[in-house]
Amino acid sequence: MSNNVALHIQQLLKKARVCFLATQGKHSIESSMAPYATHQGHILLHLSSLARHTQNIHHHPNIGLMICSPEAANESPLALPRLSFQGKVSAVPDERLAAAKHVYLETIPDAEPLFAFADFKLLRMTSAHIQWIGGFGLTKKISMQQWHNISDRGTIEKRLPPSQS
Amino acid sequence: MSNNVALHIQQLLKKARVCFLATQGKHSIESSMAPYATHQGHILLHLSSLARHTQNIHHHPNIGLMICSPEAANESPLALPRLSFQGKVSAVPDERLAAAKHVYLETIPDAEPLFAFADFKLLRMTSAHIQWIGGFGLTKKISMQQWHNISDRGTIEKRLPPSQS
Repeated sequence: MSNNVALHIQQLLKKARVCFLATQGKHSIESSMAPYATHQGHILLHLSSLARHTQNIHHHPNIGLMICSPEAANESPLALPRLSFQGKVSAVPDERLAAAKHVYLETIPDAEPLFAFADFKLLRMTSAHIQWIGGFGLTKKISMQQWHNISDRGTIEKRLPPSQS
Repeated sequence: MSNNVALHIQQLLKKARVCFLATQGKHSIESSMAPYATHQGHILLHLSSLARHTQNIHHHPNIGLMICSPEAANESPLALPRLSFQGKVSAVPDERLAAAKHVYLETIPDAEPLFAFADFKLLRMTSAHIQWIGGFGLTKKISMQQWHNISDRGTIEKRLPPSQS
């Protein structure tokens, strides 16, 4: 994978603070939104057990997830750079919880008060397939190792030039 | 439904030019992005038969779809106003094709060249369930009749004050 693709993915991860989940509901497939952070190759989600997508994940932990460049008025909506993931969601193990919470709140500081609610839990998605869609017809498979290297938050901070961070 | 909710939904439909699809893939559920327009209570999608989500829809036409307010740097990502749909996708019938194409291109003018490609087709989603999520815990079921009235493009043009159109 070229450094260029890695840089574009890191820019996307800095810009997009929400992702879109595809989960299996009781009667049909559902599309929903959630803030996310990345940590050690996982995608962290902080979800309420009262939310429908969380109940869907509980019954069917294999989901789809998209991180898409936010729309801008001066950009075409046809070819927004984006990442598509398929994988499995599980609870963050107890021994990783403190580190994961720290990273999540660095990324989504507004979520702090939600950690006081008993129904909110930190979950993590472990991806089996990742695809980068850089524009019209520009797709590229991303390996787990590549994703781990690119998505590590510390790595992003260090690699991005100051003007883009 | 209050006029306030209708107005918020119309503002969302003006701002968001893309939607997020949840489709059943060969091996797992997939999340993807597509531009959309609204027409006579349907959501129009102009998709290439070469794209994976189109192949998924062909095999499993019942999908989930989300239209979400684009992220803004000064807004919290926790409570972006959004609409969640579940429904069935089918081809736009021949007798509606000219009108649907006209409305689609009014909404997504950049898509014009794609109508020359044989693999692109106009599809429409007919929703069975629609939910408005106006913010944290603020959800509201929207009936088909309400959606039809709110989403009609002409209606939007007429109802929104000039500063918001």
